[in-house]
Formats: sequence, structure tokens, C-alpha cells
Amino acid sequence: YDLSVVTGTQIGRVNGLAVMGSDSGSILPIVAEVTPSQGANGTVIATGLLKEIAKESIQNVSAILKKFTGRDIRNMDVHVQFIGTYSGVEGDSASISVATAVISAIEGIPVKQDVAMTGSLSVRGDVLPIGGVTYKIEAAAKAGIKTVIIPKANFGDVLIEDRYRTMVEIIPVEHIEEVLEVALVPQNREVFLNKLKKLAAEPAKVFESSTGAAGSHSAA
Amino acid sequence: YDLSVVTGTQIGRVNGLAVMGSDSGSILPIVAEVTPSQGANGTVIATGLLKEIAKESIQNVSAILKKFTGRDIRNMDVHVQFIGTYSGVEGDSASISVATAVISAIEGIPVKQDVAMTGSLSVRGDVLPIGGVTYKIEAAAKAGIKTVIIPKANFGDVLIEDRYRTMVEIIPVEHIEEVLEVALVPQNREVFLNKLKKLAAEPAKVFESSTGAAGSHSAA
Amino acid sequence: YDLSVVTGTQIGRVNGLAVMGSDSGSILPIVAEVTPSQGANGTVIATGLLKEIAKESIQNVSAILKKFTGRDIRNMDVHVQFIGTYSGVEGDSASISVATAVISAIEGIPVKQDVAMTGSLSVRGDVLPIGGVTYKIEAAAKAGIKTVIIPKANFGDVLIEDRYRTMVEIIPVEHIEEVLEVALVPQNREVFLNKLKKLAAEPAKVFESSTGAAGSHSAA
Amino acid sequence: YDLSVVTGTQIGRVNGLAVMGSDSGSILPIVAEVTPSQGANGTVIATGLLKEIAKESIQNVSAILKKFTGRDIRNMDVHVQFIGTYSGVEGDSASISVATAVISAIEGIPVKQDVAMTGSLSVRGDVLPIGGVTYKIEAAAKAGIKTVIIPKANFGDVLIEDRYRTMVEIIPVEHIEEVLEVALVPQNREVFLNKLKKLAAEPAKVFESSTGAAGSHSAA
Amino acid sequence: YDLSVVTGTQIGRVNGLAVMGSDSGSILPIVAEVTPSQGANGTVIATGLLKEIAKESIQNVSAILKKFTGRDIRNMDVHVQFIGTYSGVEGDSASISVATAVISAIEGIPVKQDVAMTGSLSVRGDVLPIGGVTYKIEAAAKAGIKTVIIPKANFGDVLIEDRYRTMVEIIPVEHIEEVLEVALVPQNREVFLNKLKKLAAEPAKVFESSTGAAGSHSAA
Amino acid sequence: YDLSVVTGTQIGRVNGLAVMGSDSGSILPIVAEVTPSQGANGTVIATGLLKEIAKESIQNVSAILKKFTGRDIRNMDVHVQFIGTYSGVEGDSASISVATAVISAIEGIPVKQDVAMTGSLSVRGDVLPIGGVTYKIEAAAKAGIKTVIIPKANFGDVLIEDRYRTMVEIIPVEHIEEVLEVALVPQNREVFLNKLKKLAAEPAKVFESSTGAAGSHSAA
Ligand SMILES: [Ca+2]
Ligand SMILES: [Ca+2]
Ligand SMILES: [Ca+2]
Ligand SMILES: [Ca+2]
Ligand SMILES: [Ca+2]
Ligand SMILES: [Ca+2]
Ligand SMILES: [Ca+2]
Ligand SMILES: [Ca+2]
Ligand SMILES: [Ca+2]
Ligand SMILES: [Ca+2]
Ligand SMILES: [Ca+2]
Ligand SMILES: [Ca+2]
Repeated sequence: YDLSVVTGTQIGRVNGLAVMGSDSGSILPIVAEVTPSQGANGTVIATGLLKEIAKESIQNVSAILKKFTGRDIRNMDVHVQFIGTYSGVEGDSASISVATAVISAIEGIPVKQDVAMTGSLSVRGDVLPIGGVTYKIEAAAKAGIKTVIIPKANFGDVLIEDRYRTMVEIIPVEHIEEVLEVALVPQNREVFLNKLKKLAAEPAKVFESSTGAAGSHSAA
Repeated sequence: YDLSVVTGTQIGRVNGLAVMGSDSGSILPIVAEVTPSQGANGTVIATGLLKEIAKESIQNVSAILKKFTGRDIRNMDVHVQFIGTYSGVEGDSASISVATAVISAIEGIPVKQDVAMTGSLSVRGDVLPIGGVTYKIEAAAKAGIKTVIIPKANFGDVLIEDRYRTMVEIIPVEHIEEVLEVALVPQNREVFLNKLKKLAAEPAKVFESSTGAAGSHSAA
Repeated sequence: YDLSVVTGTQIGRVNGLAVMGSDSGSILPIVAEVTPSQGANGTVIATGLLKEIAKESIQNVSAILKKFTGRDIRNMDVHVQFIGTYSGVEGDSASISVATAVISAIEGIPVKQDVAMTGSLSVRGDVLPIGGVTYKIEAAAKAGIKTVIIPKANFGDVLIEDRYRTMVEIIPVEHIEEVLEVALVPQNREVFLNKLKKLAAEPAKVFESSTGAAGSHSAA
Repeated sequence: YDLSVVTGTQIGRVNGLAVMGSDSGSILPIVAEVTPSQGANGTVIATGLLKEIAKESIQNVSAILKKFTGRDIRNMDVHVQFIGTYSGVEGDSASISVATAVISAIEGIPVKQDVAMTGSLSVRGDVLPIGGVTYKIEAAAKAGIKTVIIPKANFGDVLIEDRYRTMVEIIPVEHIEEVLEVALVPQNREVFLNKLKKLAAEPAKVFESSTGAAGSHSAA
Repeated sequence: YDLSVVTGTQIGRVNGLAVMGSDSGSILPIVAEVTPSQGANGTVIATGLLKEIAKESIQNVSAILKKFTGRDIRNMDVHVQFIGTYSGVEGDSASISVATAVISAIEGIPVKQDVAMTGSLSVRGDVLPIGGVTYKIEAAAKAGIKTVIIPKANFGDVLIEDRYRTMVEIIPVEHIEEVLEVALVPQNREVFLNKLKKLAAEPAKVFESSTGAAGSHSAA
Repeated sequence: YDLSVVTGTQIGRVNGLAVMGSDSGSILPIVAEVTPSQGANGTVIATGLLKEIAKESIQNVSAILKKFTGRDIRNMDVHVQFIGTYSGVEGDSASISVATAVISAIEGIPVKQDVAMTGSLSVRGDVLPIGGVTYKIEAAAKAGIKTVIIPKANFGDVLIEDRYRTMVEIIPVEHIEEVLEVALVPQNREVFLNKLKKLAAEPAKVFESSTGAAGSHSAA
């Protein structure tokens, strides 16, 4: 098990990206596993010395899981493990990595290991901007990563050196569905894409509403 | 996803207003999502580094939710996310924003994104005064907001410069029903307004009472 | 919603009294609301930055609620909100105010807003002495309050200036039943007074006892 | 309600004794109330700013309650209130006072208010020695108390001045049953004493045992 | 109740041994009581200002209880009280004392009060070495104890003065069963010894195993 | 019970390895026991003054247990005891030792005591690198251990002196199944090895998946 796995596929493992100090990036592997719940109800157990914002981001990711998988996660324990983070995890920029790792583990769909990603998440699935995007992309390129997923709102912040430009493809995204479309390798791609499309079109309809409306979801 | 969405409508997203330091305001987006509960009972999960008063305000908002929606929120998890608050949220002036975002998410009714709002809340639905109302209105105007909802008790505190006067309409309110009437865009407005009227007229009747009375609700 | 409501009636709202610093008093509004419980069992949720003694007083008030209302509060969430207490609530002198606000909310009986009150409570319903009674009465008088309820044990501590003497009536009380008799405005007063009398006569008989006795409740 | 009640009887109220500073004693009233439980299971709620040893003593008293009353306290909430302890309660010398107050409240048996008491308790009902016994007895005498219950192990520590000797009767005890026999005023004394005797003779037999024995309970 | 009981027998009481400062020992009485559980499930409640290692040792003792008594302790509350420990309990050397006191209370078997003991415990019942064994034995001898149980691994550490050698018998043990055999006084000794033998031979077989084996339990 | 057991077999006991200070290693025995759960659901109780990373590693090990044993651990309490760690346990390098001890206890399969091991674990069963591997191997050799299991990723870090080379066999591993194959002594080895093989081939399939795939598990 090499901490910098950058080829092939694995279920439940995602190459996240972190900023080290103020001016360098690194690969931050995240591994997820799902088991039948040990207690009366399932819980999400995240390890790796997560600090306050990082812990909150795990709580928000669980909102996405419940909605995306369409499964009753009440009888699952979800384990999320940040690997090699002996000095702690500070921010929420691993949110899309965590969501991807856990959805991979729950659904049994492999994740491409030559893809790395960074991005925060709203509880409704929107990918929000993060810091240090240039350092993170360069670290991914140096490690042998071929594709880096970043928030669309950070696209203007990308100032990487020319020599890295040809090493990695940068994919800006707005919603968690786009992340999953790029990073996951489902057995039946057509069924999978249809499922994603439905989720994107109708993001939050979990309860019947008498007075409400489907609503035009239009962000400016 | 732009942090300053000020047009169109979105389910579960409200433009709140915050004071930065002591003399400037800013937009504070609040996003809510509702999912089937993961545990045996539903919980309200609020993130964004909320400090003590802000955490208490979330507890008070849940009193409003239980009463307003008329739904059994016992089997829902309610996620409330303050966006971009990396130095924490201090006060309770986002209470009406939180209530509006969550009611939007539960009922599936879109929220106008050109409306911003600020106001504290009593557990009975009364809108209570807040601080920094002038700075908040000016920040909303600069960001492109067209309508700002404020507590009626703060109306005398509004001292905005002339150039902002024509940019935004200021709507003073006394009760949460008025906030919802202005900010939400229900599919069937007539059904919605009738529901609000009933709630305003009979605010707290959840248990039968043998010795009590409907009572004349008269604030001086 | 004016923080100094002193006329009319409201369900679930009581004008408490607090000491500010060491030599002045102020009105401390307390608002209560009762909703069906969100969790498996009901809880009492108190907000307003309550410090240790104030938090303990809320626990003691719940003993009174269970006994007084004769209702199963196991399926209710009771919300108690101290309004405008941004620097915290220190003592237990609001105990009778909290008890009155919550009983009003549970029973749906309006509270007179021209009444203010201060007093600690034993878990058996006895009104216990508090501090700063003179400052509190003067603050109530200045705010337009007509009646102030105080603990009988504090009656000798009242040293208010002459100009306030004619502005407010001071009512010393020994037991929570007397507070409710003065402050609440039930639809059917006769039924209500009978209920209070029964509670006062037989304060704690909730379980059958084989070896015990009704007991002569005689305080010296 | 006078904090120094020293005549008549009351259900659920016991005159405990405390040491103030290092060389004076005072009356420490303890009031108990029992209500149907609010949660799924009953709890013991103790207030009065109890410090660590005092909190632990409440946990130990609950062992006595469960055994003594022979009642299922699983559906009761037991409220124990230390009155007027604004600087906190430090030790465990109020253990027998708490046990007596709660047993009085559960059984509905009045407590003599001219009795004061001090003593620690083992979880098996043995009364253990405490500190400051002389200061406590003198404080009781000054307050008008007629009888003071103390641990037998402290009898040799009693060095009170002559003028107090004739004011109070000192009763040294070894087991909680003796405390109850002195302090409680049951309606039917014969039934009550028989119940106490049975408890003293067979203190801990709550489960059937195949290999054990009734055992000779002989303290040296 | 004398803190230094050293004759006769008692149910649920064991003379433990502690080190005071760095060079003297003392008797540390431990009293246990078992009652029907107050909550939905039984708990172990330990008092006496236990510090971290001592608290952990209580958790480990509960593993022994569950296995040894063969009873469903799910409906029992187990109270463990360290007597007279106003400056706290630091280590885990009272583990065998706690196990013995609780097994005595559950089974109703008396404990010899002229026996004192010290020893840590593994979760499988092995008696592990402790510190200060010489000081502890001397303190036991001075107090009038006739028999001291110590861990076999500490036998080489015993350097007591000649005058104590004749006062106490020292019994080194390897497993909790040996402690119980020495300290308990069952009504029917034959039945009791058979039960202990079975436990020693087959220490951990609580679940059926398809691929495992009874195993040769051979410690070097 | 000698803390350095290095011969024979024991159920539930594993010789882990720790670094002391910065330049020496030591044997760190870990003992596990499994009992019917005391509460409504099983819990994992780990003692030995575990610090934050060590506590998190216990949570991750429970993911492995649930998957590996194929048993419903919901009705078991799992006790994990680090022996002799009075200054605490810092890292996660005991993860494979804990997993092995607990699986031994649950399945009733003896562990070879002449084997020592060190290694971190992912929630999916991969053995991850640790620190101090050379010091640990030397400590094992000195203590009389014959076989040391280490993470394959640490194989290049092994720089032990020649005299130790002939004393111990070093076995580098990549996955928890390899650890169990070396350390456990099942009654029926063939059945046991088949069970391990199935687990290695199909690591995480606990829920049915409609859109996923078995996936090619290929680490670079
Ligand atoms: Ca990060
Ligand atoms: Ca969306
Ligand atoms: Ca604010
Ligand atoms: Ca209202
Ligand atoms: Ca106050
Ligand atoms: Ca009374
Ligand atoms: Ca005391
Ligand atoms: Ca006894
Ligand atoms: Ca000790
Ligand atoms: Ca053993
Ligand atoms: Ca280690
Ligand atoms: Ca694997």
C-alpha cells in the first residue's frame, strides 16, 4: 500500500488534495468503508485528527449521502479515514473527496486513482470554492495524477507553471454530480449517468409538499 | 455557484446579512436541506462555526419549524449551513433567515434571491430587533439586492445614504409570517397565504386546554 | 414587538425582573412556547446565555410543571427564551417568571403584561427570597408596570422611594399558586381557582403510599 | 417560606448541616420532590452548585433509594434541591439528609423540622463519619433545632460548649434505618418500623443466589 | 461503622490497599452494592474521585463480572464506592478488590474482613503486578489484617520487616479465581469451588466458533 | 502472568510493539475479551490511556471487525486492554495487533506468543506504514520473539544489527489477512485459510448495488 497510489481504480479510496503550510500542496488520500451499523442507528465515523471546520464538513457530507444514494443509511456505519494526517485536517476543502469516497464504498463503484480533487460542498450538492488551488494542482501533477477536479469558482485562481499545464487536465465543476461523473467507473455507465441526471434535475424532493412548487433552480 | 447570488429563486437558500467588524455589512448566505433522519429521531445540524448565541438561535428556530410546517419533523434531519463563515457566527440576527431557508427546504417552496433579510426571532414567531441595520442594508444594496427585510423595531435606526435609498426597498416586519409572505414564491399563492393567515391568528394552540382561553394577543 | 410590553395580555410571555450591575433593575421578558416533542421524549430548551445557577433553576421549574399542569409533558418540547440577555443570566430569581410563562403556554392561558415578578422557587412550589428587590420594583414602576409580585420573605427589604409607592402595587407571595392567581387571566376563573386550591392543599401526592400520611404541611 | 424552619413537619424537607469556612456551621435545608419521569427512564436531578464529591454522593444515595423504597424508581424523576448554596456544596456529609428528604417525598411521610442531621453514607446504608461535627451541632442549637443526628463514629469528636448541651439532644447512628426512625413521622408507626427492621436485617438481597449465603453481617 | 473493619465477614465490602505518598500504605475499603437498574440498561457507577487509570480499571472489571457471574448484568446497576478517598484514587491496583466486592454483592457471598488484597487485572482475569507491595503489606499487618493477597509477579518485591512476617500470611495469585477462593465464604463451598474451576478452565467461550478451537492456554 | 510472554499460544493476547522515547522499542502486550453486551448495543471499550490518534485507530479497527468476523457484533462488548501503558499510547501502529487480538477473542482462535507485530490499518484492511520499525524489531528479538510482522511499506526502513538478523524472521505484509494467517493457530487450518481468501478477494461487498461493479482492485 503506497500512500501515493495514482493508477488503476479502487473502491472507497479518493486522492484528495491539501495545502501544507502556506505555499505547497500534497496528496491527501481518503479511504471510506461501509459496514452494517453496530448501534441501533448508523453513524458516520471520521478519523485523521479533524479540526472543527473539517468535522462540520463531514456532517454536511452526510446530507448529500442520504439524498444521493437513495438508500436508508440508518443501518450502516460509514467510516471515513484521512490517511497520514498526523498534524490534523483544518478546512472543508476535502468535502467532495469524502462524498466521492463514501458513495463509492456504499455503491461498490471503483474510483479512478489517476484523478485528484478539491472542493467544498453545500448541503444541496453545490461545489463551493476553496483555497490554495494552484499549489494543489502542482502537487497533483508532480505525484503523477492525470486529472484534477476543482470548483468552477476557483478557475480564475489557477496560475500553474507551464511545465505542469501539459501534465494534468483541469476540470472545473459546479455540482457533486459532475465530480462523480468524472471520477467513478461504474460497471454500467448508462444506468449510472441516468441516475446522476435525475438527481441533478430534482435535488431536494424528499417530502410531499402541498403548497410548494418544483421551482426554477436558477443561480445567477 | 457564486457566493453572491442575487437573482432568480432557489429552494433552501436565503441571503442573510451580517456585520463585519464594527462598521460594515456583508451578505451571509444560508443554505438548508432536509433529509430523512439518520438516527431514531430527527435532529437539526447547523454548521459554520456558530458561537453560543448563534447556536441558541438555532434551537429557538426549531420551535418555529415544528409549529409552522405542521409536519412531524421527528423523522427529518434538518441541515443548516452558514456559507463562508470561517471566523464564526456570533449573534442571533440570522434567525429569520434560518427559519425561511428551512421552511423553504421542507415545503419545497423557492426563495427570491434578490431579497435579503436580518432579524432575531422569539419562540412564538415575533421578529425582534438586531444591530447594525444600516450597514447591513448598504451591503445588500451594493451586492445588487432589491429588497431588504428588517425588524419593525429597527425601522428608526435606518440611516442609509441617499444613493442606496433608491437601490433597495426596505420592508419592516413584526412576525415571521410577514417574512415568508415577502420572500417565498409558492406555486399556489392563495393556498399559501391562507395557511400563513391561520398560523398568525392562532399561534400556539398545540394542546387542548380545559381552563384556558384563546386569549387576546395584544402587544402594546 | 416592543421589548417593554406593559399592557394587555399575552400567552407565554412574562415580564421578569433583573438586577443590572449592583444598583439598578430592569425588565427581563421571558417567552415560552410548547411544541410536540421532536425526539422520543420531551425536553426543556432554555436560551439566553444562562449561567450555572440559572440553568439549575430551569431544571427545578420542570418539577413544578410536571406536577402543576397534571399533563404528560413527556411528549412536549418546552422552549424558554430569555429576551435580550446578551451578557448572560446569572441567578435563579426568574424561577417564578419561567414557571408562569411555561404554564401559560401549556395551558393556553394569557398572562397580564402589566404585572412583573421576581422570585426563586423550591421544587415543591414554595417562593424563596431573592436579591435586589428594591431596584427591581423601581425599574418595574419606571417601565409602566402596575403590579409587582415578590417573595413574602423579601417584604422587609422593600425600601422604594415615595414617588414609586403610588405607581405600583406590591404583592408578596409564599407559593407558586398565588403567583398564578395574580398573573394569569383564565377564561373560566372559577374552574382555574379550584384547580389551584387543590394543588396547594395536596402538593406532592404523585405515588400511592402505604406507610405514609397526607402530613400537616406547617412552615413556621 | 423561612430558610430556618425548625418546627412542625414537612414532606420532602430536611434540615441538613454544613460547615462554613473552617470554624462555623449552618443549617443547610434540602428539599426533594418526586414526579413522573419526563424521559423514558427516571433520573435524579440535584441542584445547588454541587461540586465533585457532593455529586458523587447523590449517585450513591440513589443506590439506597432503589433498595429502601422497594419501588420501581425507573418511572420517577427525583429532584433534590440544596437551598441557598450560592457558593456551592463541597463534601458528602449531606448524604443522610438527601436520602431522608427523598424517601420522605417518595413515601409521602412528613419529616420533623426540629431535627437536623449530618452524615455520609455507604452504598449499603452504613452511616460514615464526617467533619466539623461540633460546629454543626452548635449551629443547629443556635437555630432552635432540638435533635441532631450524627454518625456514631463521630461521637468522640463532639466538644460542644455547656450552654448548647441542654439545648439539643445528640443521637449517634450507624445505619440509615436509624436516621429514618428518628426523623420521619409516619401515619402508621408500627407498619413503618416493621418495614425498617426488615431492611436492616436483610440489606442487599435483590437477586437470587445459588452458591451464596445470607451471611453474618458483623462489623468489628 | 469503623473504617478499619478487620474481623468477621461482610457482603460487598473488601479491604483494598493503597500507597499514600511514596513510602507508606493504608487500608482502602471498597464497598459494592447491586440494585435493579434505574435506566433501560444497567450501568456501573464508581465513586471516590477516581482518576483516569482508576476509571479505566472499573471498565475492565466489568468484563470480568459479565463473564464470571454468568448473570445478565444488563438489568443491574452496580455501585462501587471507594471509602474515604478525598484526594482521589490514582492507579489500577484496586482492580481485584473491586471485582471481589462486586461479585460478593451480586452473588450474596460474604467476604472475609481479615483479608486485604492488591492487584491489577487483565480483561481475561489474569492478576497483573502493581507497585508499593511492601508498604501495602506492612500497612495491612499494622491494621490487624491476617492475610494479604498479592500478584504472583510481585512476590519477589516483598521486602517486609521481620516483625510483620509473623503477623500476616502472604498469598501470591495469578488469576482472579484464586482471589475469590481465598476471600469469599460461600454457604456451600463445594458448589462454589466447582464453579470457579470451570471458569478457570474455559475462560472466554461466550460465542460459538466454527473455525476456532478451544486452544491450549499456556502462559510461559 | 509475566508481561513478556513469548512462547506458547493464548486466546485474545497479542505481542504488539511500541517505541519508547526516540530510540528504543519495547513489547506492548494487548489483551482482548468479548462478552455479551451490557447495554442495548455492543460497544468497544479500550483502556491504557490512549491518546487521540490511538483512540481513532480503535474506531477504525471496529470497521475491520464487523467485516472480517461476519458476526453481528451488535450484541457484544469488545474490551481491548493495552497492558502496562501508564504514560499513555500515542500512535496508531498497534492497529493490526488490536485487530488480531479481538478477532482471536471473538473466534476463539489462539494467537502465537512468539510472534510480535506492528502496523497501521486502513478501514479497508490495508496495512499502512509506521515509525521506528528497526527499534521495534530489535526489542522483539531481545525479548525472545521469533517472528516479527511489519508493513511491507516499511521493509526498506529495516536496518537492524547483524546479531539480531538470525534471531528473528521478519515478515512484511500488505493486508490484514496476511497478519492473521501468520499469527493465528486455528483448529482447522484449511477452513480458516479459505475464509481468509474469500475476505481478501471481496473486501467490501456488504450492500447490494444496482449501478456498481465488483471493480478491479488494483493498487499501483
Ligand atoms: Ca484541505
Ligand atoms: Ca442545487
Ligand atoms: Ca449576524
Ligand atoms: Ca405571536
Ligand atoms: Ca435575575
Ligand atoms: Ca408546599
Ligand atoms: Ca456539608
Ligand atoms: Ca449493612
Ligand atoms: Ca491503589
Ligand atoms: Ca486466562
Ligand atoms: Ca505504538
Ligand atoms: Ca483492499
